[in-house]
Amino acid sequence: MPEYNAPLRDMRFVLHEVFDAAALWARLPALAELVDADTADAILEEAAKVTGMLIAPLNRSGDEQGAQWVAGEVHTPDGFREAYATYIEGGWVGLSGNPAYGGMGMPKMLAVAFEEMLYAAGSSFALYSALSSGACLAIDAHASEELKNRYLPPMYQGRWAGSMCLTEAHAGTDLGLLRTRAEPRADGSYAISGSKIFITGGEQDLTENIVHLVLAKLPGASASSKGLSLFLVPKWLVNADGSLGARNALSCGSIEHKMGIKASATCVMNFDGAQGWLIGEANKGLAAMFTMMNYERLSIGIQGIGCAEASYQAATRYARERLQGRGAAGVQEQNKAADPIIVHAEVRRMLLCMKAMTEGGRAFACYVGQQLDLSKFSEDAEERQAADALVALLTPVAKAFFTDSGLESCLHGQQVLGGHGYIREWGQEQLVRDVRIAQIYEGTNGIQALDLLGRKVVSNGGAALRQFAAEVRHFAHQHETPYGSELITALERLEAISGWLLDQAKEDPHAIGAAAVDYLHLFGYVAYAYMWARMAAVAEARRAEDEAFSAGKLATAAFYFARLLPRSLSLEASIRAGSAPLYGLDAEQF
Amino acid sequence: MPEYNAPLRDMRFVLHEVFDAAALWARLPALAELVDADTADAILEEAAKVTGMLIAPLNRSGDEQGAQWVAGEVHTPDGFREAYATYIEGGWVGLSGNPAYGGMGMPKMLAVAFEEMLYAAGSSFALYSALSSGACLAIDAHASEELKNRYLPPMYQGRWAGSMCLTEAHAGTDLGLLRTRAEPRADGSYAISGSKIFITGGEQDLTENIVHLVLAKLPGASASSKGLSLFLVPKWLVNADGSLGARNALSCGSIEHKMGIKASATCVMNFDGAQGWLIGEANKGLAAMFTMMNYERLSIGIQGIGCAEASYQAATRYARERLQGRGAAGVQEQNKAADPIIVHAEVRRMLLCMKAMTEGGRAFACYVGQQLDLSKFSEDAEERQAADALVALLTPVAKAFFTDSGLESCLHGQQVLGGHGYIREWGQEQLVRDVRIAQIYEGTNGIQALDLLGRKVVSNGGAALRQFAAEVRHFAHQHETPYGSELITALERLEAISGWLLDQAKEDPHAIGAAAVDYLHLFGYVAYAYMWARMAAVAEARRAEDEAFSAGKLATAAFYFARLLPRSLSLEASIRAGSAPLYGLDAEQF
Repeated sequence: MPEYNAPLRDMRFVLHEVFDAAALWARLPALAELVDADTADAILEEAAKVTGMLIAPLNRSGDEQGAQWVAGEVHTPDGFREAYATYIEGGWVGLSGNPAYGGMGMPKMLAVAFEEMLYAAGSSFALYSALSSGACLAIDAHASEELKNRYLPPMYQGRWAGSMCLTEAHAGTDLGLLRTRAEPRADGSYAISGSKIFITGGEQDLTENIVHLVLAKLPGASASSKGLSLFLVPKWLVNADGSLGARNALSCGSIEHKMGIKASATCVMNFDGAQGWLIGEANKGLAAMFTMMNYERLSIGIQGIGCAEASYQAATRYARERLQGRGAAGVQEQNKAADPIIVHAEVRRMLLCMKAMTEGGRAFACYVGQQLDLSKFSEDAEERQAADALVALLTPVAKAFFTDSGLESCLHGQQVLGGHGYIREWGQEQLVRDVRIAQIYEGTNGIQALDLLGRKVVSNGGAALRQFAAEVRHFAHQHETPYGSELITALERLEAISGWLLDQAKEDPHAIGAAAVDYLHLFGYVAYAYMWARMAAVAEARRAEDEAFSAGKLATAAFYFARLLPRSLSLEASIRAGSAPLYGLDAEQF
Repeated sequence: MPEYNAPLRDMRFVLHEVFDAAALWARLPALAELVDADTADAILEEAAKVTGMLIAPLNRSGDEQGAQWVAGEVHTPDGFREAYATYIEGGWVGLSGNPAYGGMGMPKMLAVAFEEMLYAAGSSFALYSALSSGACLAIDAHASEELKNRYLPPMYQGRWAGSMCLTEAHAGTDLGLLRTRAEPRADGSYAISGSKIFITGGEQDLTENIVHLVLAKLPGASASSKGLSLFLVPKWLVNADGSLGARNALSCGSIEHKMGIKASATCVMNFDGAQGWLIGEANKGLAAMFTMMNYERLSIGIQGIGCAEASYQAATRYARERLQGRGAAGVQEQNKAADPIIVHAEVRRMLLCMKAMTEGGRAFACYVGQQLDLSKFSEDAEERQAADALVALLTPVAKAFFTDSGLESCLHGQQVLGGHGYIREWGQEQLVRDVRIAQIYEGTNGIQALDLLGRKVVSNGGAALRQFAAEVRHFAHQHETPYGSELITALERLEAISGWLLDQAKEDPHAIGAAAVDYLHLFGYVAYAYMWARMAAVAEARRAEDEAFSAGKLATAAFYFARLLPRSLSLEASIRAGSAPLYGLDAEQF
């Protein structure tokens, strides 16, 4: 049976040794008194216990039982209610929430490690609070003081949950097509009517209330995405004293039967004149929702890392124990009928692919977290602005590359187990099913790629990319890393193809779409090369202090540069083929 | 809801226009009177009806209901019994069976097209007869005349089914570890005792009898795979007149709960002194079983193509109908709220990846079928031998590359549908779950890669590869194809890396294992380049006869060479990194 142990040593390596988080926190006034290295380690250890002992044991049974819809109510699987009650006692939902409303105010650099644990222990369970954290962020950033005071404290406590209501049956990516309406009421609130689909946690039996953030159109609003407004629509209306009042006019019509994340309720939500309150300005709902979306995109990216780590742990355990065949260089275990399969090159290749991509992703998540913290907490406007630009550039990379790599890793983990990987009781196939959604929801990875290349690179003439490249180049030139020249070569490949694409985009309207996904992957491999060069530099420098650990990191870095980074060669060639090969067929010729 | 229409036009293109099958059949005496182009087309049309109208409609419900084990009996899902009864009336199980025992004697070139349809319509249903066909092949090749006369006719008729009993709980890839025993009985038969797992169709309610082919060890047999013998062990003993006698001492202990192919019963089979008969010579069971295994490997490869085709059809339908966003080059459908998503470059990229890989695979399956037919039916010993060598070389490529590409295609097909691809009712997620097993069973794809590089390339000093390369080179030089020079470049890359690996293997025991999977993929891309060059040459030559069809083929070939073949660049670089990056960590450092 699968089990999960949070990789605390690796997480501390990234947080403290690679990124020296405590030094950063010490110079940011909003964090200096809240958190230092010891506090962070204590939080991570507690998180490891909660995720490994409370949540992970429910992951298989949750998948088997699934969420159940009965007459408009959703029952989460056995054990979820009790586990959730214990979980929220730790204040985890408000971990990085605004302290002014009861949040713990912790930095994102720390929160990303916690999120990884949460998804590794159970994606379905994780989603019930992940959406709450994102909803809080949007409310905190855009809602009125009254709404914040009323809703944020119980949401940070986890007593109330949040949901994100965008998609309608005919409108997913293209939100301009939304039909849900908001009619002004005399009291300044709005009556919301329409039907939303694919609403994660739209209904459940874990929390006292559910706070839906709903995109809808005001009367006379434009037919495009510029005509959308964001509304806060609670399941139970809330009295002035914070107590629950009447049931609002909304209901869960059904839940989806899905490939995975079966314990997470994916709801059809019907709003029948439900009372809601405007968040932020009218017709600026998409921007407000994107505060939540961008947070969720990084979080969902981390689902890819968490699932990959869980799969890696199970695959490694199996590969050390399963006896089959003999090592190519001779018998390894004379006293046994066969050698453990970890002696075989192909098994090692799969495990190393998982290890190199998961650890590269973990470092990159921490790096993006660092930029988010700088963007939020720095006292220096220029530093905030620079961090903002990096966050905008790197968020689509994180979301899509973490999850594409996450699926690849889980497929490897399943393959290591052979036939047992296909059997449900071993847990590996569930991870494949669970992680697969992360490439689809919160904006498909194709949409992330368009966002990266179109909005974050081409639209600003490559300015954000130049900023990132300057940082990478500065690192490669200033630090002793075993991989400086490989990193610069990879970076130059990315810069050259970016320049070429900037030119192409001027003449060919399809240039961006044709290149986007390959470009995002190329970007991801270069970003991970930067991470591995940084990790290798630290491991090299600290070799004397922790020989085995450092040697493991250096060997994994060597594998990354030798066998994974070369994928950039094919991606470059494919991008340079341009858009013409995609438009040689009419729709009928497919 | 998903539906499936066999791609008859494409199948005829490959069979008749690219490979001119009828001309080959006309010169092979065993086939000349049995089949010509018209017969083949009639069979394909009938097969399209059976698979599209009888089998495909059961695929979703079969997945939802699954096979059920009750007190040692297995119940297939509702509708399977009736459909199976109708299905076998057509004689499909014996399509390429030996006519001397009631088979139809059809060529493999034709049978591969039928198998593709069968898997596309429903992998679970397909498996119940796929194992029978393979078991017949092993019996026909190795069993005594008496066994052949008694067992083959009802198996070709589909009234009895076959199973393949290799794996035990502790022994999958490493068959030398098997523990199942065979004790000689006084009457010349054997008493078989042991427990087998992962037995597809080990028990079911579709056929009157089930004929298990069981690998077991005779007393005093070697502990290696050279000590294995193959036995025929029927569920019901068979009287001299062919009627069924007593129940044999074997039973189905349970069935597995799996990620996919849920309507296919994957059984634990317990043999408790069951009566069996030796097939072929004692201690040569593995060779006899490999007659079946090699057949199954091509067949399971074709599962990858069939599932990919089914996913492609559903994705293409969706992409033509789903309205979302506007084309980058301007509005396409003025009268609609949005354009169909097939206008978007990224959607086209995914569909073209599916199309190019599926059609490349279909051609390659027909090509391998052609070699199998030459190997079996040619009157010229040299031609038979040459075909044999190609079959041995190309079978692992077909099995692994078809199925790795098949999963990639089904993932694309799922992604095209966005959130709907993750919902069960749309069928795309089932195809992902169903096709995933094909990379694992009948020898994992890692094992196929070792077989290719170790046994089929390095062991014979590259002789078989040189034969294949000579054929490819001859084609590129003799024919007008738009892609002759790209094909030669790709071939030379494969030859160069093969030569380098031949050298490496002399010094480094890990060289083969470290390169194998990347090498197989590189081989696959070159083989598909050969197929696409051949298809493009035919399409170019026949352009005047069928303009739209030919233009579609040429555009797909252009996509393949521009955007998929470049993957060989990364594979080459990864192979050349050698085995050292895989052995930098001890087992404990993972």
